[in-house]
Amino acid sequence: MAEYYSRRNLEFLLTEVFDIEGVLKLGVYKKHDLDSIRMMLDAADQLAQNELHPYFKEMDQQEPRLEGGKVKVHPQVRSMMKKFGEGGWISASSGPAFGGMDLPIMISSAANYIFGAANFSASVFPQLSTGVARLIEHYGSDFLKHTYVPNLYNGAWQGTMAMTEPDAGSSLSDLKTKAVPINEENEIFRIKGQKIFISAGDHDGVGNVIHLVLARIQDAPEGTKGLSLFLVPQKMTNEEDKIVLNDIKTSGIYHKMGYKGTPIVHLSFGDEDRCYGYLLGEANQGLAQMFQMMNEARIGVGLSATAIASAAYYTSLNYAKERLQGRLPDEKDVSKPQVPIIKHADVKRMLLQQKAISEGSLSLLMNCARYADIIKGGGVESKEIYQLTLDLLTPVAKTFPSEYGVQCTANAIQIFGGAGYCKDFPVEQYYRDIKIHTLHEGTTGIHGLDLLGRKIIMGGGIAFRAFTEEVTKTIKKVKLEILELNKYGERLGDALFRLQNVTMRLSTMAMKEKKEVFMADATLYLELFGLVAVGWQWLLQAIPSQIAVNENRGDEFYESKLYTMRYYFEYELPKTESIITRLNSSDNLLVEVQDEHLI
Amino acid sequence: MAEYYSRRNLEFLLTEVFDIEGVLKLGVYKKHDLDSIRMMLDAADQLAQNELHPYFKEMDQQEPRLEGGKVKVHPQVRSMMKKFGEGGWISASSGPAFGGMDLPIMISSAANYIFGAANFSASVFPQLSTGVARLIEHYGSDFLKHTYVPNLYNGAWQGTMAMTEPDAGSSLSDLKTKAVPINEENEIFRIKGQKIFISAGDHDGVGNVIHLVLARIQDAPEGTKGLSLFLVPQKMTNEEDKIVLNDIKTSGIYHKMGYKGTPIVHLSFGDEDRCYGYLLGEANQGLAQMFQMMNEARIGVGLSATAIASAAYYTSLNYAKERLQGRLPDEKDVSKPQVPIIKHADVKRMLLQQKAISEGSLSLLMNCARYADIIKGGGVESKEIYQLTLDLLTPVAKTFPSEYGVQCTANAIQIFGGAGYCKDFPVEQYYRDIKIHTLHEGTTGIHGLDLLGRKIIMGGGIAFRAFTEEVTKTIKKVKLEILELNKYGERLGDALFRLQNVTMRLSTMAMKEKKEVFMADATLYLELFGLVAVGWQWLLQAIPSQIAVNENRGDEFYESKLYTMRYYFEYELPKTESIITRLNSSDNLLVEVQDEHLI
Repeated sequence: MAEYYSRRNLEFLLTEVFDIEGVLKLGVYKKHDLDSIRMMLDAADQLAQNELHPYFKEMDQQEPRLEGGKVKVHPQVRSMMKKFGEGGWISASSGPAFGGMDLPIMISSAANYIFGAANFSASVFPQLSTGVARLIEHYGSDFLKHTYVPNLYNGAWQGTMAMTEPDAGSSLSDLKTKAVPINEENEIFRIKGQKIFISAGDHDGVGNVIHLVLARIQDAPEGTKGLSLFLVPQKMTNEEDKIVLNDIKTSGIYHKMGYKGTPIVHLSFGDEDRCYGYLLGEANQGLAQMFQMMNEARIGVGLSATAIASAAYYTSLNYAKERLQGRLPDEKDVSKPQVPIIKHADVKRMLLQQKAISEGSLSLLMNCARYADIIKGGGVESKEIYQLTLDLLTPVAKTFPSEYGVQCTANAIQIFGGAGYCKDFPVEQYYRDIKIHTLHEGTTGIHGLDLLGRKIIMGGGIAFRAFTEEVTKTIKKVKLEILELNKYGERLGDALFRLQNVTMRLSTMAMKEKKEVFMADATLYLELFGLVAVGWQWLLQAIPSQIAVNENRGDEFYESKLYTMRYYFEYELPKTESIITRLNSSDNLLVEVQDEHLI
Repeated sequence: MAEYYSRRNLEFLLTEVFDIEGVLKLGVYKKHDLDSIRMMLDAADQLAQNELHPYFKEMDQQEPRLEGGKVKVHPQVRSMMKKFGEGGWISASSGPAFGGMDLPIMISSAANYIFGAANFSASVFPQLSTGVARLIEHYGSDFLKHTYVPNLYNGAWQGTMAMTEPDAGSSLSDLKTKAVPINEENEIFRIKGQKIFISAGDHDGVGNVIHLVLARIQDAPEGTKGLSLFLVPQKMTNEEDKIVLNDIKTSGIYHKMGYKGTPIVHLSFGDEDRCYGYLLGEANQGLAQMFQMMNEARIGVGLSATAIASAAYYTSLNYAKERLQGRLPDEKDVSKPQVPIIKHADVKRMLLQQKAISEGSLSLLMNCARYADIIKGGGVESKEIYQLTLDLLTPVAKTFPSEYGVQCTANAIQIFGGAGYCKDFPVEQYYRDIKIHTLHEGTTGIHGLDLLGRKIIMGGGIAFRAFTEEVTKTIKKVKLEILELNKYGERLGDALFRLQNVTMRLSTMAMKEKKEVFMADATLYLELFGLVAVGWQWLLQAIPSQIAVNENRGDEFYESKLYTMRYYFEYELPKTESIITRLNSSDNLLVEVQDEHLI
């Protein structure tokens, strides 16, 4: 039995909450059925158990190192990449052109969740390759597709995203890397610039590394409108069809607090003016193209954070069942044996918090994956609405599991007590590992700006309306059909109503005030949104659970879901109140306060 | 200029908020004046700058190691212990019998804060020795005092607390270490048992380690009533006055997530049945005696957490002033230069959060130290009331800075972005280091039980009433004298009123329900209490600041205080609302939910 995720919970979400069977009736997904899907999940489980989890601790302890200009990673990376390739995981959700299985995104997400729970650092390598290969499939010429996609999908080569530069991280409009065409067809360019924080940007677990680089063609417009996307391989063939090293130098490796199994490097492109790359897609459309990958990567971040939080939960749950300490408060007889700490109310609270956040987050991510599947599978008229809702939920699904997941891993440590602070147990590693997720693919603050400054107001608020309609539908369902849950439906309705009011207030302000004023509390707004969205997920999960109980099919699993839902509505959802109090305040102190007052 | 704390802020708290000059008129403190006190703070600053801060990173990277049964620490520890001894810091607040200066606790606390901000791991060694020496001074025979106290105070020897055992951490009533008298005078005992998580329990930076060990004399009562305190030196003199090694084995060293500079070890006492210790004080009074040290240690934990949070604040503040990234939301022209990130609203929010929590916590700790000084200095009739209030505030002053301090260091990382996750900057170390404070000297959960199950109800609620009177006094003061602050006084009054109601509700429940029911949400109650207590501290700090502004003495320092107070009341104090919602709920879910529902 895996100790880092629950297969039953995954099956529950897929079949009882999110109707995977309905998805399997759509378009390209018709080739699969529930049995074949389950065999894939069995295979993911095996890969995680055999190839990933055994190296979880070792990959943390034996950090990648830069030796003679080349990054050495844990030897397991090579074997694991091969297995990811052989198992079809890197191309799992891609089409058949290069051997993909057209697996529903719900299932590839479930698999990535299993991989991330087993060994987060290890799970990053193939996911990066997937994103890169898919962009090449979409925008690349036949030559590029045939040269690069197969080896990315079979795990022989590594894909990376190279965006950030020393002076341009959050502010992509300031990217400076240059591209100069070397032929008249504008296919091949000479690339020159510095890229930092490149995950898996160089390592000896693969034969080649394929970078997707954002750069500016000479004389292109300033800002993000002048960015183009280039495929820049570490090794490429020259005119004589010989394999030559491209001019890319790994000039540094980052030593990180956690997430140590994956090398993050600093790359110098074109130090000797002989770094070559292929333009991918249209010139000056690079950012939009890259964002196709970024949006998936952001959902992937939420999934990885959820996976780590799950692993921390199961680890601390097992410890809480075994560790004997103290007696219940009403037991005064010290000669009575000590009880397992799971019996202490505060330990139960910390376990329920972890369960509520990790399972609630996983539900939100599965909901997002379902939208993506419906969009891809076709068969619905309102495809655009699903796309807008997915766009709206992306910053939420990225940040909520990351920020609240940090608290989960903190609670896992608390359950272990002082032992949790020591390296004998994995919880301290989960605590270190998960923190990256509040930072990469856009910090939490950046996603607040994305949600409030872009997603909420886009199309006159159409996505926000679609979201509230979806939530309202769920609330109405319990009101009409499942009376036991109506109390919680009403609470969610109340929170949603207040979210709508705050949104209205802020949107009105957006028309009257400077952007700075209306956006000042964007991070709080994002948190509020996440609390409501995950409350919705708990109501969604409570429905089949309550029905099972009412039909006398209610085993501990369903009862556990209902308790966790109650926990969420009692302990987490009320956090919306404090945030709303602040968001309704007229004190614009964050705008008013100036540098000189920060001392 | 130190980059890890603010001297001006310390002086502000001492002189403008907490009337150190009034304290210097009391009893033993009359020998000091403001000038001599300031010279001591100068000396503390120098020691921190020269001996501690330069080794902050190195002591993290070069962990202590166990070699041939002996712990090796960073060589600086020896030099530093000598300096702590020479400077009089280990005995600073002790009386003159062994060279102590009778320094006000407010000042020794200020010094410990400076040391902790400069290098937390380093600051732990002398503080442990202080606590041990003080207990020996209090309970030891003349022989023990003269043999052990001078070498602890001069830094030649190390003191430790040895309480926790493998099966007894939070539950001290289950301690098993045994003591058997070897002479009829019941002075010397043979000690046998395992002690774990012993900070500075063995190292080569000192010549001897003096353990205070909680053990059970044979045939003593069960539970905490049968615990006695023993002085067990690593090296002692035998009958022939020769120095011999006691039978204490360092059987393991812990590898921790942070706080790496201090060795934490597993000690085996009496494996060969020849470990000897001296009874300290009365038999079976060990826990009460130890708690004299523990209560100070708990305040010390709060202070260390505050110190780390301060250091993280100043580090991220400096970065935010220098790092250029992006433009303000209303600036669309990407050809304009990037701005320092301190100009972004969300960065200001994260800086204000750190400032509000660290300076608010420091204020609370200074308030506690002031109470301790008044108790020690005498000259007031209501000494007992101060003691009760101090007892009440101890769990709050230990946990609030620790839990909210974690968020401060998380925000410091966010301000650095991905760079904050890397070891090039110290913020990731602050994030790792501070987490210990939610665990040692009682986890946060244990302190919740202490506050609600013991401190609130003691003496029929006398301490809680004294606390509310103190807060009310401050609220009344602003209402009558400083109209600009009245709005905030009213908000604090409102939060206090609701805290009182919840306390009443829980106290009533305590009489009717099982203890388990009334105590289930003790951790939330503790958080609520902390938010109100620190809100009070911000009002206390706002008073002299607003007066300075009104009298046209208002420089940036005072304006900064007023902005931070506003931040606290706008962003932090409203968190009380969510907690109160939960505490007023009648859903006893934490009691109701059983092991089988946690899956």
